[in-house]
Amino acid sequence: MMSQSLAFGQSRPRDLGIRIGVMQSGPQNAITDVAGVKVGETTLINGENVRTGVTAIIPHQGNLFQSKVPAAVFVGNGFGKLAGTTQIEELGNIESPIILTNTLGVAAGIEGVVAYTLSQPGNENVQSVNAVVGETNDGYLNDIRGRHVKTEDVLAAITNAKEDKVLEGNVGAGTGTVCFGFKGGIGTSSRKLPESLGGYTVGVLVQTNFGGVLQIDGVPIGVELGKYSFMDHMSSVDGSYMIVVATDAPVNERNLKRIAQRAMMGLAKTGGIASNGSGDYVIAFSNYPGNLISHNSPSLELQKPTYLQNDDMSALFLATIEATEEAIINSLFAAEDMIGKEGREVKALPKEEVLEIMKGYRKIE
Amino acid sequence: MMSQSLAFGQSRPRDLGIRIGVMQSGPQNAITDVAGVKVGETTLINGENVRTGVTAIIPHQGNLFQSKVPAAVFVGNGFGKLAGTTQIEELGNIESPIILTNTLGVAAGIEGVVAYTLSQPGNENVQSVNAVVGETNDGYLNDIRGRHVKTEDVLAAITNAKEDKVLEGNVGAGTGTVCFGFKGGIGTSSRKLPESLGGYTVGVLVQTNFGGVLQIDGVPIGVELGKYSFMDHMSSVDGSYMIVVATDAPVNERNLKRIAQRAMMGLAKTGGIASNGSGDYVIAFSNYPGNLISHNSPSLELQKPTYLQNDDMSALFLATIEATEEAIINSLFAAEDMIGKEGREVKALPKEEVLEIMKGYRKIE
Amino acid sequence: MMSQSLAFGQSRPRDLGIRIGVMQSGPQNAITDVAGVKVGETTLINGENVRTGVTAIIPHQGNLFQSKVPAAVFVGNGFGKLAGTTQIEELGNIESPIILTNTLGVAAGIEGVVAYTLSQPGNENVQSVNAVVGETNDGYLNDIRGRHVKTEDVLAAITNAKEDKVLEGNVGAGTGTVCFGFKGGIGTSSRKLPESLGGYTVGVLVQTNFGGVLQIDGVPIGVELGKYSFMDHMSSVDGSYMIVVATDAPVNERNLKRIAQRAMMGLAKTGGIASNGSGDYVIAFSNYPGNLISHNSPSLELQKPTYLQNDDMSALFLATIEATEEAIINSLFAAEDMIGKEGREVKALPKEEVLEIMKGYRKIE
Amino acid sequence: MMSQSLAFGQSRPRDLGIRIGVMQSGPQNAITDVAGVKVGETTLINGENVRTGVTAIIPHQGNLFQSKVPAAVFVGNGFGKLAGTTQIEELGNIESPIILTNTLGVAAGIEGVVAYTLSQPGNENVQSVNAVVGETNDGYLNDIRGRHVKTEDVLAAITNAKEDKVLEGNVGAGTGTVCFGFKGGIGTSSRKLPESLGGYTVGVLVQTNFGGVLQIDGVPIGVELGKYSFMDHMSSVDGSYMIVVATDAPVNERNLKRIAQRAMMGLAKTGGIASNGSGDYVIAFSNYPGNLISHNSPSLELQKPTYLQNDDMSALFLATIEATEEAIINSLFAAEDMIGKEGREVKALPKEEVLEIMKGYRKIE
Repeated sequence: MMSQSLAFGQSRPRDLGIRIGVMQSGPQNAITDVAGVKVGETTLINGENVRTGVTAIIPHQGNLFQSKVPAAVFVGNGFGKLAGTTQIEELGNIESPIILTNTLGVAAGIEGVVAYTLSQPGNENVQSVNAVVGETNDGYLNDIRGRHVKTEDVLAAITNAKEDKVLEGNVGAGTGTVCFGFKGGIGTSSRKLPESLGGYTVGVLVQTNFGGVLQIDGVPIGVELGKYSFMDHMSSVDGSYMIVVATDAPVNERNLKRIAQRAMMGLAKTGGIASNGSGDYVIAFSNYPGNLISHNSPSLELQKPTYLQNDDMSALFLATIEATEEAIINSLFAAEDMIGKEGREVKALPKEEVLEIMKGYRKIE
Repeated sequence: MMSQSLAFGQSRPRDLGIRIGVMQSGPQNAITDVAGVKVGETTLINGENVRTGVTAIIPHQGNLFQSKVPAAVFVGNGFGKLAGTTQIEELGNIESPIILTNTLGVAAGIEGVVAYTLSQPGNENVQSVNAVVGETNDGYLNDIRGRHVKTEDVLAAITNAKEDKVLEGNVGAGTGTVCFGFKGGIGTSSRKLPESLGGYTVGVLVQTNFGGVLQIDGVPIGVELGKYSFMDHMSSVDGSYMIVVATDAPVNERNLKRIAQRAMMGLAKTGGIASNGSGDYVIAFSNYPGNLISHNSPSLELQKPTYLQNDDMSALFLATIEATEEAIINSLFAAEDMIGKEGREVKALPKEEVLEIMKGYRKIE
Repeated sequence: MMSQSLAFGQSRPRDLGIRIGVMQSGPQNAITDVAGVKVGETTLINGENVRTGVTAIIPHQGNLFQSKVPAAVFVGNGFGKLAGTTQIEELGNIESPIILTNTLGVAAGIEGVVAYTLSQPGNENVQSVNAVVGETNDGYLNDIRGRHVKTEDVLAAITNAKEDKVLEGNVGAGTGTVCFGFKGGIGTSSRKLPESLGGYTVGVLVQTNFGGVLQIDGVPIGVELGKYSFMDHMSSVDGSYMIVVATDAPVNERNLKRIAQRAMMGLAKTGGIASNGSGDYVIAFSNYPGNLISHNSPSLELQKPTYLQNDDMSALFLATIEATEEAIINSLFAAEDMIGKEGREVKALPKEEVLEIMKGYRKIE
Repeated sequence: MMSQSLAFGQSRPRDLGIRIGVMQSGPQNAITDVAGVKVGETTLINGENVRTGVTAIIPHQGNLFQSKVPAAVFVGNGFGKLAGTTQIEELGNIESPIILTNTLGVAAGIEGVVAYTLSQPGNENVQSVNAVVGETNDGYLNDIRGRHVKTEDVLAAITNAKEDKVLEGNVGAGTGTVCFGFKGGIGTSSRKLPESLGGYTVGVLVQTNFGGVLQIDGVPIGVELGKYSFMDHMSSVDGSYMIVVATDAPVNERNLKRIAQRAMMGLAKTGGIASNGSGDYVIAFSNYPGNLISHNSPSLELQKPTYLQNDDMSALFLATIEATEEAIINSLFAAEDMIGKEGREVKALPKEEVLEIMKGYRKIE
């Protein structure tokens, strides 16, 4: 039995001197810096072949179906099975927990969200739920064809969600993932704008399972370690990622889509290339309290949401780019070696070697 | 126990003198006029409260995962849970049966498609499947919260699919649906272009569950019967529809999206309005044999598909519009009275009265 | 010199007993029933070969650049040169008059909008304008290659715009258009919701230049007159249309896009098919006073717009469908015979014959 | 009079030891490495206030209207006036030169493309042209309100286009642009895949006028130089960019859109953030000879294009990312100090200082 997760404070890249970007992170440097957001994990490590799990992101602490959050999705590369996209696009909101899991676990994810939603007090008459379930493919380490994620695993991730702690690395939906040839996993980060720019927080959570030419804070780690896509002039990239962006800024669904699109720019800075086989999606929501959307407002009642202007979006864009880049790097630092299906092993990023390289490039001291 | 379906030849509108459009239908006037397409149904009518089911559309008779079909989706109104859209958009193809069911049965639909695909000979190493599962909400007549559609029901619909017969009305995914205030259901129709326009066939299958101001071949049936949306200046529409368009014409994914968009124009001619609460989607595919997309072509092997030019699309557009309009009307004529959940009854379209009205407007003799 | 336009009250279809839809029209049955909207026309009929013009729609009576309107575009078929689309989509607003003209006049249209905007008091520092200029191709009757639309024609259409009267038929951008094989042109219509549904107004203006199988209020006029696309099993449709939808309802850019999409459903009911060669676009805006978007709000100032809920959109959808259908028919009734380039003649819809047919189908008395 | 351009070989970053990415550039490291592509420039530097111009990219050397190229557009941030997008999306092709100029010069750009196209031998009956004209706003250095770009300037850029030499820096549409607070301009780069990956070439040309936090090959130049967006916690970014991607790889319009989307990932690696006020667009085309689309094929003639499979796209994605990143850096190295409107001066990137910084980070020797 291996230890599979890394709690806060244990040598996250920021603690090691790696400072990505020019903005400040929030106090936890996690998506939960956005007040009200909770994250839950179900990690399934059983026997030799099961290396998978579920990560649940809860946008706020009320009844999500009755009080929906403005939301948007951006598709970086649509080779994936993200459920729920068209309704988010049409109606501009999310009405459920956001579930991340493995590619063949999406049905279990939907079933879990439906079961959860129908069972919530106040939802006795609900007959329709738009479950938002994303995935990456952990089939290298995990017996994915065995479909080991069950409805109860999804429910467990939802109900164990917490505000104060986000596990990173080999946990939840990141249990069996592989990223840049190293062990990937769950990562998170945040940015808090200065008051002169509004003081809003942007938090990001990623499930990393993709390839490319790894860069850490601009340093060509993949090349230095001799491990990158097309290294031998042969095609080899694959994988996927899911990115969830939360903010407390009062922004509407259109501007959330723009924020989501910027997360791809943060991903690009790590060396990801959104390869053909990758299912790359960003889900963004705002839980600004005054903008929650009531499921049962009286007919013809006019709504009065609060919004930042288009002109004030750029700082949120940069915050999203930075937090995404750092969340991905965080996932790599947190993940540990993993042996899985058919005895296959994926090594963690060699952190000491990486730190040496970064010193060589004078990015840390 | 009520009779729930209407086989071919039993008083379909065309047999009653109703001729929609200016093009000719195919021999069966059904989606199966497109060679190779099969349709299967699982109808669940149990006790007082279960009125639901599954309809499966099989694009061709080979291994769908190994030989994918060019495909596209158009979103008429995205208040629905259609699974699989982003991958169709990104990669331009469908690799599974298309499943229609009820809103809370999408997870079962995905699970069924995954189980089917993994079990097909030749798919032993498949670890990722893009299940395409659409739905409408039959919760008025069906105990939808009970989630009665199971994986095996989906598998049954796939495996019982036939080329030669499409049931219409209260069958499969149309078992519990309501359309324009009358009993809706499954409907199908086709158009065969004259040889001077290429001789191609377009087939349409619909699951009808929506509202509006019913018109049949231009005749204001909804108004004449005193049953239409906003009749009393009160909001009342709701519902959804799924439309599947098949063709044997050699068209690429971009032109399939254009075809899909035209299906909405056929829907419009029946008086549907794509109301806010409606999940309205069109899935279009071409099974032109030479254009099937091999899952395992050698790397860098160049493909040589065959395509009609943009300039030759218009006749296919009109064929799609006409077949969609007629398929919807066919669903209404085939559906019969249904008593369901909590004793609620939905009456079938009063066909004799409708025919009288149409005579009054001199649309039939 | 021929008379080219038809003012209000002169035998519009509604005056002749043709009642399209189930909702009430506004007092003028025109886009100008939306308070504040103005329409201007420049009609260019010179010599034997010039048959073209400009139509300007002014969303409100203030400085449009400084007070932008929420807006959206829906592309029915993108074979057209509509300028300004991506900025409308990104920012959710329109900041200029909307100009309609001919295909090769788009540059003049942009230049006119730029000149107008830069010259407005208060715009002395403006360095960027998103001109919204749509077009259809009047090259059958008009010497389109001669590019006879000039900047000053565009400015004239903007400055002569009026609130109280909209010319229909062979005027402005509709001067040289052809629709369903008959003379097309400009048409307009409106719907006013009952107070129980909010009391809002939807106004539509169309530039009609397209083909298909003409239906008027459900009556197969094209077939009865022996003039429709594919009649001889030969491809023949072409053309384009522009549709502008205005409303005073407080709706955001996302719901305006949904409204725009419904205009295509009204178009479908006239028998249009959005053929391959057609540039078919809908532009929708709301000029609800409280929702105008200031160009120069202080940084970080929060906005408090007013919005209808998603659930209240359906009545606006039906209003849009009906007003679009009627506006198209109005354009056909208003347009008169036109002789143009190379002596080509396009006949107006044979109105008396049409009315006889409609009596035969008992749609009018 | 200042020297405004830098020809090949004069200290481009690659010559100075800066190696961006892991793939090889083509022989010219320019978009013209894609055989058949030509680039032309009109540079307008007149008096104290005119600092603008036109850049024309010619996709192949035949009649572009009669032999169209498969093409796609990706919108990074749509605050811009790019003309021609919807037709490219609908029909999947480009039929004209691609013109870049300033924001208020788009009308002149369209007029120039129309004039050019109508005048080409073989186009005597052409009545419709989809002009593709992009822009960025050079209003800081240029009297943009004066609209100094004329139709003849556009024609000159088209007719002087050459295959063998691309000027970079303060030329053409890059004459008056500003990037990361330094003088921007035109830049270009290319990548040639190894034969094991197909041997195809990807070429990129950029017009750089945007802000962010400049990184050069991962080195934080903006921070080191104390010049970056939000440096003082104040919003300041703005600007825009146009990116044109050419390839000789046989890829269809869908995969060209995916390629275009990847260019944004290369942009991201330079520190651009696609700020709110930025009009950020990527236009991608393939001029693979066998895939040119004839304007006048016989009706119903089937086309047999040649395509790479989806699975072979990833190497082209990485090539696009790398070439875009390098083209942007090239534009900064080539641009020189510029004094313009109202005596404003924009300094070039301090190249010697930058090289010192890069040595400090051990990215060059």
